[in-house]
Amino acid sequence: MTVYNAPIKDMMFVLQELFNVDEFWQKYPDTQDFNTELASAVLEESGKLSRDVLFPLFRSGDEEGCHFDNGKVTTPEGFKEAYKQLSEGGWCGLGGSPEYDGQGLPKMLVVLFEEMLFGSNNSFALYPILSSGGAMCLMKHGSQELKDMYMPKLYTGEWSTAMGLTEPHCGTDLALLKTKAEPNGDGSFNVTGTKIFITAGEHDLCDNIVHLVLAKLPDAPEGVKGISLFLAPKYFVDGDGNLGERNSFSAGSIEHKMGIKGSATCVMNYDGAKAWLVGEPGQGLAAMFTMMNYERLSIGLQGLGSAEMAYQMARDYAKDRLQGRASSVVDKSKPADPIIHHADVRRMLLFVRASVEAGRAFTAYVANNLDISHFSNNDEEVKRANDLIALLIPVAKAFMTDKGLEACVQAQQVFGGHGYIREWGVEQLVRDVRIAQIYEGTNGIQALDLMGRKVVRSKGELNKPFYEDIQCFLDSDDAKLNPSYAQALEKLLTAHKKATEFVMKSSASNADEIGAASVDYLHMTGYLAYAWMWAKMCAVASSKKDEDFYAAKMHTGQFFFEKMLPQAYAHYDQIMNGCSATMAMPVDLF
Amino acid sequence: MTVYNAPIKDMMFVLQELFNVDEFWQKYPDTQDFNTELASAVLEESGKLSRDVLFPLFRSGDEEGCHFDNGKVTTPEGFKEAYKQLSEGGWCGLGGSPEYDGQGLPKMLVVLFEEMLFGSNNSFALYPILSSGGAMCLMKHGSQELKDMYMPKLYTGEWSTAMGLTEPHCGTDLALLKTKAEPNGDGSFNVTGTKIFITAGEHDLCDNIVHLVLAKLPDAPEGVKGISLFLAPKYFVDGDGNLGERNSFSAGSIEHKMGIKGSATCVMNYDGAKAWLVGEPGQGLAAMFTMMNYERLSIGLQGLGSAEMAYQMARDYAKDRLQGRASSVVDKSKPADPIIHHADVRRMLLFVRASVEAGRAFTAYVANNLDISHFSNNDEEVKRANDLIALLIPVAKAFMTDKGLEACVQAQQVFGGHGYIREWGVEQLVRDVRIAQIYEGTNGIQALDLMGRKVVRSKGELNKPFYEDIQCFLDSDDAKLNPSYAQALEKLLTAHKKATEFVMKSSASNADEIGAASVDYLHMTGYLAYAWMWAKMCAVASSKKDEDFYAAKMHTGQFFFEKMLPQAYAHYDQIMNGCSATMAMPVDLF
Repeated sequence: MTVYNAPIKDMMFVLQELFNVDEFWQKYPDTQDFNTELASAVLEESGKLSRDVLFPLFRSGDEEGCHFDNGKVTTPEGFKEAYKQLSEGGWCGLGGSPEYDGQGLPKMLVVLFEEMLFGSNNSFALYPILSSGGAMCLMKHGSQELKDMYMPKLYTGEWSTAMGLTEPHCGTDLALLKTKAEPNGDGSFNVTGTKIFITAGEHDLCDNIVHLVLAKLPDAPEGVKGISLFLAPKYFVDGDGNLGERNSFSAGSIEHKMGIKGSATCVMNYDGAKAWLVGEPGQGLAAMFTMMNYERLSIGLQGLGSAEMAYQMARDYAKDRLQGRASSVVDKSKPADPIIHHADVRRMLLFVRASVEAGRAFTAYVANNLDISHFSNNDEEVKRANDLIALLIPVAKAFMTDKGLEACVQAQQVFGGHGYIREWGVEQLVRDVRIAQIYEGTNGIQALDLMGRKVVRSKGELNKPFYEDIQCFLDSDDAKLNPSYAQALEKLLTAHKKATEFVMKSSASNADEIGAASVDYLHMTGYLAYAWMWAKMCAVASSKKDEDFYAAKMHTGQFFFEKMLPQAYAHYDQIMNGCSATMAMPVDLF
Repeated sequence: MTVYNAPIKDMMFVLQELFNVDEFWQKYPDTQDFNTELASAVLEESGKLSRDVLFPLFRSGDEEGCHFDNGKVTTPEGFKEAYKQLSEGGWCGLGGSPEYDGQGLPKMLVVLFEEMLFGSNNSFALYPILSSGGAMCLMKHGSQELKDMYMPKLYTGEWSTAMGLTEPHCGTDLALLKTKAEPNGDGSFNVTGTKIFITAGEHDLCDNIVHLVLAKLPDAPEGVKGISLFLAPKYFVDGDGNLGERNSFSAGSIEHKMGIKGSATCVMNYDGAKAWLVGEPGQGLAAMFTMMNYERLSIGLQGLGSAEMAYQMARDYAKDRLQGRASSVVDKSKPADPIIHHADVRRMLLFVRASVEAGRAFTAYVANNLDISHFSNNDEEVKRANDLIALLIPVAKAFMTDKGLEACVQAQQVFGGHGYIREWGVEQLVRDVRIAQIYEGTNGIQALDLMGRKVVRSKGELNKPFYEDIQCFLDSDDAKLNPSYAQALEKLLTAHKKATEFVMKSSASNADEIGAASVDYLHMTGYLAYAWMWAKMCAVASSKKDEDFYAAKMHTGQFFFEKMLPQAYAHYDQIMNGCSATMAMPVDLF
């Protein structure tokens, strides 16, 4: 069976040759200690961790799953030891603030680590990655006291976080939430309510679990403005950081799911759990959303990492499996040729590969802007980066996970009947990656966020820096190296602008135009981003195409432009056909 | 939870209004006893069976799965009793030959029954449906003696069949198979070898299991011409039809699969199993292929049935779940509106619905031709039907299962987080339907069959009757009822002809053009067929659109043309870009 091997060469290509991080990191005081040499060392180490520690638990974690017994959750065998290695190796505080001994790594580097976590073990990856999200939220919005108390052990990985948002009757529409927080008069609150789908709400990997829970104060206004954020630790912590009594909340059950079976998805019952306010009253959603951009990019990486693993599995199988004769016989001494010689198998492999490599480059671009936003002191630069982030995070989350599922399904198809058998692992990737299209805001919600809150509400202003960056490439000498790709990119850019204009105009008189166009628009935007990435990558590769790595880039890029990009225009046509077909049917006729 | 409800109204619409079966059935002596009244009664009864007997075992069968113990396979609780009901109700011999008391139902009716089986319970459905396939093969190619001995109890469902094709080292490429058959000198043979992925190779639903096994005779030539077909019963049968000793083959294990967990997928070890030749030596594959057209259409129905069930689940959930406000508030007294009012949820539901209804109509068209081929005595008519079948069976199998997976995934997405939880059942549909793209010839193999063996090898001759039938509609008054749909259909027909010409020409000098175009070509053909069906359905509906059923047809048709059909042109463009992008990368660079 294939063993996960982190694609370090391609990762370094993206950092070094595509985004020239050595120069980028020199720009800001907090990143000047980073360089590609250090990056390479980090990737080598995390590559080993993912291959030798996490991947061996990939199949067994799925077969065993999590256990629930009377409020106690036990993770699959080996998870605890693996988490300890992660924690002791300092990997839990990788992106954390140096103020509490986090390692302060730029997001451009952290995303590559996260891709490896997801690539080697989706279920396991969620524990450290979601915990980092909670830590980020606390770091940004917690009081000095709360931060002093919790941050150090969150960064060491001794403690983890869990985020309590969803309730049985509300997921997307958090305005409906019912969980209550009553003030105790001493600055603390009692939180009461039920939350569902709480990833790692209870588990046995850490000594303490710090819950960040959305709830409403007694006098809270209706709607999302009434939502506040509270911190409730599983065990109370004294002034010296020692664990004390247990708080009054517990897991009521864990969900039986399609995949990510090693990840504990908990129903959490808060029975007057003692909690402290994080940030201002009524600002709970806003506080959550500061880390949401990071978290959603991470979930995009679940799509990417899973697709990379699926590629490795399918490629190995396709090289190994003998079946049928290639159009020109490869090896007469064998009864058949490896199926990788068959056009249709190559099509599937190249689809996966082209999606993965574009996704990796696109992630770096988005992470680059997150880093600018975080590290830069130049207001204009930060605003521009924030605009790009606002526009592209929903694309990164949804497009990369939609392509991630497609990629895993295609890779599974390469295996024929064996792809349906659990032992091979590729069907697990399909089941595991599927959740990434759903949680952290469904991909439909991402599309609405993009089309409605970002594009239409900004009157297209948020699109401008994105268009500028693409235009800047098109105007450069690099674009001249592969004129047909530049032409294809320019054509799609023009179509994208037209589609944007169309929806802005049509939605002025009919709000449903936004919802009806949104998913097509998100996909079209994804294709535009990937087309740009491929044009950029081929520009770098075209001068070096006699080396294998660059030759492969050129071939894969060709496949993207000729065999995938046409999809973008189907989305374009569907947008331009407007919302009538989507909205006309009365509800009773469904 | 939603309960499966057979879509009888739509089924009757297809039979009666779209294909006028009353007139059709009057044409042939063997079908003159059939009419829509009888059809409706059959559908009502099988609707009850699927809803009340099979659907209740849908979730429990998945959770329990099959059990294997020392060669013995136990199906999930309730399967045995359900199978007994099916058998006693005469459902196992529905399409069987009246010569042995089969009921001789036309395929146009049988497909609707099979859709219900798959819709209500994928795992269970495979037992009777695959058994029918084996029975059909034996009926066509078995000696009088074998038929007399086995057919009656296969049609009553007391016994079942299993088909032994795949071996560990060969699935697609059966020329490589190693199973041997040694003559015993008394007309019987000893079969030795290992087969894998044998659906219902062993189970506890019937008294006897009749294996049809592909094997090679000692003096057999290399390749597929050396393959013969043998019948090996689990228990020997004496002259009076009584069961005797057990034959020497057994199940070595059952597979652990992604889905269809209630279906026993067996490794079968034949240890000198006593067997009899079916058909001529060396004609084993040909014999198998006589039922393959029926079987592959059945697997297409797995895609269709699953998508129908997914639609019902998602529609019910979307009407029930309150979340967010619709663009115009629906019910102020409630905290939120049902999500079915949101454009993006409607998009998903309409996608599933438009796929299902087109698929059902297309199935009827293909089944109609199978019936012509079977019941007609007019050589010309039969040849034309056979050409259509040859062209369209791979499309029906692959396009309907590809759309089936997409549909189940979209329906699952409607559920948000709940879609990922096993209890709701919709994630099971995704897992269950996934196999349909893989078995009975992967969808990639279907596409190669279509593009290579059918289209290119016939020099486009097989396309002609299909094009004629579409043109005939376009030239009719019906087409004038919805001119924009007729125009869209005509445009796609022209593009399809161009794509066909292109591949026929380009593949003359490069055989890889076939494999590189094949999947895109199959999908384009699928869209052409569906576009025709939608144009036909809208033609019927447009004069009656003030009735709900027909109004819904018109709305769904509009959705198909405006929001799905543009995909066809992405496939067109990808075909016209040729095979270079697919073939250029050297194997070592993958």
